[in-house]
Amino acid sequence: MEGSTVYFIDQNLLPFEFRVAASHTFTESCRVITGMQVRGAGAIGALAGFAMAQAFIEASTGKDPGFAEKARRMIECTRPTARNLFYATERVFLAGLKSAEHAIKEAQAIADKDASDSLKIGEYGSPLIQNGSRIETHCNAGWLAFVDWGTALSPIYLAHREGKNVFVYADETRPRGQGGRLTAWELSNAGIPHAIIPDHAGAWLMSRGKIDLVLTGADRIAANGDTANKIGTLEKAIAAKHFGIPFYVAAPTSTFDPRCRSGAEVIIEERSPEEVHYQTGPDENGNLHRIRVTSPGSDAVNPAFDITPAELITGIITEKGIIQPSAENIVKLLNPHL
Amino acid sequence: MEGSTVYFIDQNLLPFEFRVAASHTFTESCRVITGMQVRGAGAIGALAGFAMAQAFIEASTGKDPGFAEKARRMIECTRPTARNLFYATERVFLAGLKSAEHAIKEAQAIADKDASDSLKIGEYGSPLIQNGSRIETHCNAGWLAFVDWGTALSPIYLAHREGKNVFVYADETRPRGQGGRLTAWELSNAGIPHAIIPDHAGAWLMSRGKIDLVLTGADRIAANGDTANKIGTLEKAIAAKHFGIPFYVAAPTSTFDPRCRSGAEVIIEERSPEEVHYQTGPDENGNLHRIRVTSPGSDAVNPAFDITPAELITGIITEKGIIQPSAENIVKLLNPHL
Repeated sequence: MEGSTVYFIDQNLLPFEFRVAASHTFTESCRVITGMQVRGAGAIGALAGFAMAQAFIEASTGKDPGFAEKARRMIECTRPTARNLFYATERVFLAGLKSAEHAIKEAQAIADKDASDSLKIGEYGSPLIQNGSRIETHCNAGWLAFVDWGTALSPIYLAHREGKNVFVYADETRPRGQGGRLTAWELSNAGIPHAIIPDHAGAWLMSRGKIDLVLTGADRIAANGDTANKIGTLEKAIAAKHFGIPFYVAAPTSTFDPRCRSGAEVIIEERSPEEVHYQTGPDENGNLHRIRVTSPGSDAVNPAFDITPAELITGIITEKGIIQPSAENIVKLLNPHL
Repeated sequence: MEGSTVYFIDQNLLPFEFRVAASHTFTESCRVITGMQVRGAGAIGALAGFAMAQAFIEASTGKDPGFAEKARRMIECTRPTARNLFYATERVFLAGLKSAEHAIKEAQAIADKDASDSLKIGEYGSPLIQNGSRIETHCNAGWLAFVDWGTALSPIYLAHREGKNVFVYADETRPRGQGGRLTAWELSNAGIPHAIIPDHAGAWLMSRGKIDLVLTGADRIAANGDTANKIGTLEKAIAAKHFGIPFYVAAPTSTFDPRCRSGAEVIIEERSPEEVHYQTGPDENGNLHRIRVTSPGSDAVNPAFDITPAELITGIITEKGIIQPSAENIVKLLNPHL
């Protein structure tokens, strides 16, 4: 953030173009989140915090007193599932009641904390990865999704830096292709060997002994450990359980929602069927086209997330260590003084 | 087949264009199979039979005596997984040793038998479908894949004709999209309510009680009931088992391979990574484009099939009735006189 302008990487253009774009008002920032130019639980949280700060700047230039409160509600309506968004708006809103300056500092503190949290997630998670490990990951939970290091990819980045040989199977993650587009792009940049796979190929690779570990991020973790994450995560967790393969979720404590008792209480965002029907990408000359990939006239169902019950999760890697998901362990994690 | 020309629906152009194309020689027919202009176990088998007949016609016009034998090997090298291809080449080859006329008749008999078998599969399978049933299906096992009626879709077509309300969730089936393109197109034409879903969304719908039954086709069924089918079938079967949802495979006895003892012996075709990286479809003006949908420079893994072990399959719907998959039941099915 510089002045009242927030700069962000436009993830909709990746991997074909790397462009830093700018958002000047909180309403612009809302559109950036809704349109998924910025996505990933941590990145959404960081931008939501800055958007909240933008609202206080706008409020302090003479709008009505309820302005920041209305802005908060609008920011919280952009995407309902990621916990980090609500975590950030709450913190920045409370800070902003003192002054717009406080709001800006709080938003920056959240983004900075995301960066240090994700590094710690990497440090705790890296020992799970052996030399030669083959890891399946779903969607994108790398530094694009979570400031600087990422969640699921952070242990992989650290293991790679430590000199371990790792191989990553990146689920394509239809319909928006965050795995094939963003995770693959991140891994290419980092020089980490990997292959994109169709979303339903994981179980087959598991059955052939080709996957040692599944690592995903999380959008919201309920008080009992049930985890909301990108649609398809549940299917991976069931397959991993079937084949006895460890299934880990990586997320900072800011992704936990102790007021949400179980996965049944999480709101699952339903996105437009258009995302299933159309794909955009460059032809061989680099010209972008939006093409139809399904039968015209057919309907599609496009839930953005699903819920993986705690009993399918081997462990959750947080910035404070790895826990087995249970209500008791989560209470202890979030309230170390109890 | 008319003269030595085989006419077929070019499935690569569907659902955007319906075109009947022609193949004049057995080598052309081989390319049609390799390029997947004709795909689906039954349709591949039918075309392989006609290709074998074409080879005998070409042989009888003065090529060397080993010509038909070489042709058979070439046809059998087009795609290794679908049993029906080998079933057809074997039968037509033996018939062709008498005359090219016999080969043509045998090829036509195989295609005709596929049509009557698939109708019977529908008749046996339809009682599994209740009024109001919601069915998930994977890939395309409809009349495009299996002459006239299809395998997995045949019970659905019959249930619909009987006046039952059915709703079909068609897995998109990346990378080639046979579900989103072909199954959705077939169901639209038949007026059957349906929605396309991303390939990893099935488990989530199951967990919400939205799927009553999973129905797929098969490319090869081993002597113990292990079933090779489109990549992703295994993941659906594991998810269905996890949620206690019936998982049925529909295939005629010509898809069974009693010489193949278990799934471990089935050759799984690995197709080009390009199929994962690129998608082709029309823009809003109807102009076709081939676009990149993944990060340039990344590799992809593209197994075309996987193996679902017999213990995950509730039943196999054949033209002779429904069996529980086991070596004993399969021996009885294939050798009713024993």
